[in-house]
Order: sequence, then structure tokens, then C-alpha cells
Amino acid sequence: MADKRFQSLPGFRDFTPRDCAIRNYLFSVWKEVAHRYGFVEYEAPIVESTDLYLKKSGGELTTQLFRFEDQGGRDITLRPELTASLARIVGANQRDYPKPLKWFEIGPCFRYEKPQKGRGREFIQFNADILGEKSAHADAELIALAIDTMLALGFKQGDFVIRASDRQSWLSFCEQHGIDDPSEFLPIIDRLEKLKPEAIAEKLAAFQVTREQVDAFISNPENASDDFKSIQADLDARGLSQFLELDLTIVRGLAYYTGAVFEIFDIKKSMRAVAGGGRYDGLLATLSDGSADLPATGFAMGDMVIRNFIEETPHAKMEMEAWLQRNAPCDVFVVLADDSKRSQALGIISRLRSAGVAVDFPLSRLNVGKQFKKAEQSGARFALVVGAEFPEMQLKSLSSRTEQRIAPEENPVDVILHQITQPDGPLIA
Amino acid sequence: MADKRFQSLPGFRDFTPRDCAIRNYLFSVWKEVAHRYGFVEYEAPIVESTDLYLKKSGGELTTQLFRFEDQGGRDITLRPELTASLARIVGANQRDYPKPLKWFEIGPCFRYEKPQKGRGREFIQFNADILGEKSAHADAELIALAIDTMLALGFKQGDFVIRASDRQSWLSFCEQHGIDDPSEFLPIIDRLEKLKPEAIAEKLAAFQVTREQVDAFISNPENASDDFKSIQADLDARGLSQFLELDLTIVRGLAYYTGAVFEIFDIKKSMRAVAGGGRYDGLLATLSDGSADLPATGFAMGDMVIRNFIEETPHAKMEMEAWLQRNAPCDVFVVLADDSKRSQALGIISRLRSAGVAVDFPLSRLNVGKQFKKAEQSGARFALVVGAEFPEMQLKSLSSRTEQRIAPEENPVDVILHQITQPDGPLIA
Repeated sequence: MADKRFQSLPGFRDFTPRDCAIRNYLFSVWKEVAHRYGFVEYEAPIVESTDLYLKKSGGELTTQLFRFEDQGGRDITLRPELTASLARIVGANQRDYPKPLKWFEIGPCFRYEKPQKGRGREFIQFNADILGEKSAHADAELIALAIDTMLALGFKQGDFVIRASDRQSWLSFCEQHGIDDPSEFLPIIDRLEKLKPEAIAEKLAAFQVTREQVDAFISNPENASDDFKSIQADLDARGLSQFLELDLTIVRGLAYYTGAVFEIFDIKKSMRAVAGGGRYDGLLATLSDGSADLPATGFAMGDMVIRNFIEETPHAKMEMEAWLQRNAPCDVFVVLADDSKRSQALGIISRLRSAGVAVDFPLSRLNVGKQFKKAEQSGARFALVVGAEFPEMQLKSLSSRTEQRIAPEENPVDVILHQITQPDGPLIA
Repeated sequence: MADKRFQSLPGFRDFTPRDCAIRNYLFSVWKEVAHRYGFVEYEAPIVESTDLYLKKSGGELTTQLFRFEDQGGRDITLRPELTASLARIVGANQRDYPKPLKWFEIGPCFRYEKPQKGRGREFIQFNADILGEKSAHADAELIALAIDTMLALGFKQGDFVIRASDRQSWLSFCEQHGIDDPSEFLPIIDRLEKLKPEAIAEKLAAFQVTREQVDAFISNPENASDDFKSIQADLDARGLSQFLELDLTIVRGLAYYTGAVFEIFDIKKSMRAVAGGGRYDGLLATLSDGSADLPATGFAMGDMVIRNFIEETPHAKMEMEAWLQRNAPCDVFVVLADDSKRSQALGIISRLRSAGVAVDFPLSRLNVGKQFKKAEQSGARFALVVGAEFPEMQLKSLSSRTEQRIAPEENPVDVILHQITQPDGPLIA
């Protein structure tokens, strides 16, 4: 149990080695899948001028800002999300890049919220965006990226589903029902399952619409937009359409979405969205004062909810643990059975490390039993025992408890490299 | 030229894709070398309680803090460095980990300084520390890590040198000369080459010491401490002592160092230190209120100075460029010579990506010439041309301009995987 005097600030996390390795697993999967999809990585500053966030609509975020004045009197903010910086950077540099841009970013964001499970004041977000392409093929590419990210994290069909819709469907509905300001109407749809039926009915009535009309609209797949149908056909050609469901109740809370919108849901806890995204064609122009008037579609996944989901899903957790084991901190622990051979051992250690082997060893004199205990704790697969008989050495497998003599005439680096590239099985003694 | 309206805050950087790839190169080398040395990664929050930094001595940092009050009235600070968080985390969790701890961290730090070349308000620091080991072998292990980091970054003998000393040498000097408070005396040594000789002479006179006595002490290698000699012998056994120089003028500015101290210098610009570190045996106890009273030795390297040094050193720059090319965003660009074959192409793209190949393609209809231009821009090694004759396809090498037919009966994924694992040479047409 951690000593309370040394806790981080509420909502902030310490990544001790295991937590950091899990974070690195997420980073590694996110980067690998983004790379396969031809996305390139960028990174924005952690701190931006507060203006940038005030310009972006959606009042909610501005009450949750870590906002302050710097020593030069500037009104600055710890970034609550990544899209505003993206718009700024693209506004500044877009002439340098052919369109569409397929850019992704992984980094910490900050919101002053009540800390709870799956929600912290500092969290890490994986953001992927396609800028400068209005075709629904871009939305499909992004949704395919989201699906392949889930698959690469070890999830399977039956664990998750992408529920998607298109704000265009609701804009047609509004037109049919004489609703002039859809931005007042859409938030009701967003909260259909969150508010009481009476409250919903009352809000709908203000637009002369009944709950029955809304439910009938939602349940009719004919109301899918043309873009939704294109996305479905595109994903079908990729062999991924089984992960996509039309769900016209998905409109996403933020005002700036303009087209296809989607959320990834954990099927077992069906109310939990683990990621989401959508098309926001006007936002870049707003944020960049018209300098980057690019159609855009983007997607974001936070590290906290997805980590919980992995840990609750046995086969996904198993894949993560396998990765953690493959990326263990140490391949070989050198046991100094005779401390007078330290110099000779250092020479071997140096050569092994230069060959790319992860090697640890005791930095001060310890008895052999304690050294073997340290070897076990290090997670190393092998212990290399250097003793009085050097240059003869023993290479012990710490899993199978077998050992192999390394003869003076052998090159110990070659012998060890050969062993550690073998699958983990008993050595021939 | 970037549009001035969209600049980041002064001293903060945008990592557009090339800058981000260079950052990733540094991360990759730092992590790979730390891994070879058996160090494990941790990460601290970006924001800490300001108390943590006020506790740490060295008044200088506290005037450069990004310090503010959060919405809950807490006095909080963007971390200016990583050691204070490390002490807090180890104070909270040290019972969970066998000693010594070999931990490293890579992450952004923040200081309100005047931005200039090699110095920003947000910079990235690579920190490696060994906690819980007082032997000079720990200092040697850390200095070896620093040397191997430089070598892995493509530097060679003649590019850099580690200048090391030991505060113990100067404590002996102080004892010999009846100086009671070395913490008043050491800062003079730290500034020997920065202040005018008359100013130095005056400051030394206050301790009844002459410049001649100081210079004589510095130039006599007999004044190296026992720990320095151990470190030298240890590095010699590793084949790394040629990178180490005794330099008794190195004492490091910060008050908390207690033993061996070192800096990596760029030999051509001999006044530029690119990294530094040393032993700080009392600091963890101070920072953790005695909870983690561990001897410690640590080392830090910032991303800005080292990147400049790489870019000024042709062979190091070449290694970086080779890495950037190996990690290019795209392996294969799919050219849709007949847009009616988009579905078929999507199927192939999906299979290639599942096999780990990085694939990009046009998201909307484009003429073939423009598609080939995009293929070139993407950095892909190959263009896969999908046209009317599908399932027959053409695989073109974009470097050698040769091409290969993929026959309908062949598995295109196998053919392409085979080609992209070949060294980059002309395809047999």
C-alpha cells in the first residue's frame, strides 16, 4: 500500500514500472496500427494559449480547464484535448503537406473533473484524423483504423461493436418536420436514453415532434444516410462490416460534428463507450480563422477506459501479458560467483549489451544465493555464472533450471545470442 | 514559412511529422540503450504539488516555475525536472521493489526561461537513475550508459568526452585549507571559467585560498578520488575508459550532489555540455521526509541540445536519417488505375495491413498520374497498381522504376511481403 504522504495530486497517476509497461503496450499497439494505415505522428505542446480553446465551441470544456497566467502575463491552458492544437498546427503549416493529411498523436490531456474509475485529471489520448478529404471513404478508413486498433488490442467479435450514424440523417428529419435549428434539436436525441421519458417528450413537444415519430425514425434502417451506406460497403470490402451497426441514436454530444459519427461500445457493459469520433467539416476553418478550411474526420481513444476494458476481457488481457513478458526488462542476469572476476565479467557484459542483449548484474558484492534471487526478480530468462573457472562459464535457464557450459574456446556472445533467440524451452544440459 | 497567427506559445514547440519522427528516433535510442542496461521505465505526472519543488534545494529552479492555483485552490506546478517526482514515487512504493532500482523516464519538463537555441520552455528529458547502491560501480554503470547512449546516437570517439570529477576531492581540499562550509566554496569552482579572473581571485581570497593553489590542485591527477579511480577501472574493463577524462573543474551547479559528478561535452564546441549527472546521496531522504533514504546516482539528457549536436555531426546525422528512412510512414501505396476496382483493392489493402505492411491509397477518385505523385510523396518503396485486369496486378519499385506482374494465381500478400523484405535494389522486371 502506497504511503499517503507521497501521493500524486488527485486525478494524477504515477506510472510505476508495471503501469508504465502497460502504457507502453497501448502506445505500441496504437502506433503500430496507425503506421499500417499510413498515418504519421505529430505532437503538439502540452500548454497552449487559452484563446485556442475558447474559440472552439462546446462550452463544457471551458469550465474544466487547467487555466492560469504565466510569468509573462499570458492566459495559458494545459490542453484538454488535441484537436484545437491540430487545427492550429495545420493552419500554420498546411501548405507544406499534400492532402489528405493522415495524422495521429498520442499524449497527455488535462481536465479538472471529479476523478473516478476510467476518468482522471491527466489522461492519455490517442487521436487519429484525416484532414482534407470529404469522401465517405475517409470516414471508412478511420472506422477501419478504430476496428483494427481494437483487434490489435486482442479484442474479438462479440467484445465490441461500432455504433455509427450520420448527423445528415437527423438534418433530413429536421427538414421533414419543419425544425429550423437542428443544433437545438440534436442534443435531445443525444440524451434520449439519459433523461426520463417525460422530460424527453416535453422537449420534443417544443418542436412539435412525438417520441413515437422519433422512435419510428430510429428503427427504420432506410433512414441511414448515403454516407453511412458507403461506409458500410467500404468496410464490407475490407471484411470488417460485421463490427459496424447503424444506430441512429448516436449523434455525439459536441456541437461541431457535421456528418458520420461513431462510438465503440463494450458489448458486455453496453452503456460504456470506449472511443468515439466523427466528421467535423467546419471546425478547422473556425479554429484557424479560415486558414485551414479542410473537411475532417477524427477519432479519439483514452488510455484509462481501454485499459480497464482489456483487464476485464480475459483473452485481451492474455495478449497484453504476453507482450509484457516479451518486453521484459532483462534477458540475461550475470551472477558473479567470484567477485575477483568482476573486470572479466564487465568485459562480457559490455560485449553482450553491444550485441543488443539486455543484461543486468550486481553492482556490489553479494553472495551467490542473493544474486540468483535478483536474477529471478529481474525477469531474466538466463543467468550467466562467472566464477573462478573463467573463461569457462555456465549459462542457466531460469525457467527450465537446466544449464549449459560455455567453454573457454567458445565465443560467449554467440552462444548466448543463439540461446536467447530460441523459443523458451529446456536447454540441453 | 509558418503563418505567425498560428504559432505556439514562445518556447513551446510543434512537432510536425518530421520533427516528431526525429523525437521518436531519440526516444527509440534512449529506450533501447536503457533496456540493454536493465533499466525499467516509469513515468510521473506532468503536474505536481509545488511543495515538492520547494523542498528540493537549489533556489534557481523555483524562480522559473510554471506555478499556479488549480480550481480546488491547490498550489501546483508543471514539473521543471524529474528527480523530485522520482523521490516521491520511490518514497511511496520502495518496499515493492528490490534494490538497487535502475529506473529511467522520458518526458516533457517546463521552465520559464528565455527561449534560445537549445533551450525552450517545454523540453524533453531522458533521466536514468540508480537508487539504493552506494558503490562506485553504480556510478560507472551510469556513465557507461551515458557513453553507450552517445555511441548509439551515432557519435564516435573524438566527437564527445565525459569529463568527470568527484565532490569528495574538493571536500578534501576544503579540509586541507580549513574551509568549514564547502557549499559556499564549491560554487566558485563551478564558475571558474565563467567569471573574470579578478572576480574569482576575490571570491577565493575570502577563503584564504589563491588561484594558484586551486589551479595546482586541478592539474594534479593524484587528486582524483578513490571513487573516480574505481569508475575509471570499471570503464576500462568495459572497453569504455577512452571516453572518460578527469576534470576537477567539474563540480556541477546544484547543491545536492555529494560524490562523482560528470558532464558530456561536445569536443568541437568545448564549452557545450550535452548531458550531465552525478551522485546525490542525501536528496531522496530530504525529498521523501526520510522515507526513502537511498544513495542515488543519476543522469539527464535533454532533447534540444542533443538534436542540435546530431545535426551538426555528419556521421551522427547520417545514422539518424537512415533510421528515419527505415521508419518511413509507408511501405506500399496502392494506385487505383480503375476506380471501379476499389472494393477489390480494399480487400487486398486490408489483407496487407493485417500482415503488418504499412499501406496507403487514395481516398477519392484521382487520375493515375496524381496517384503516382502521391505514392512518391508518401515515401513508399512500392506502388501496387490495381486496374481493369484485376486480379492481375503490377508491383512497381518507386526507387528502381522496375516492375513485376502479380499473376491471378499468385497470393499478392506473399509476393509483396517477399519484396518488401528484400534489400532495396532493382526488381527483376
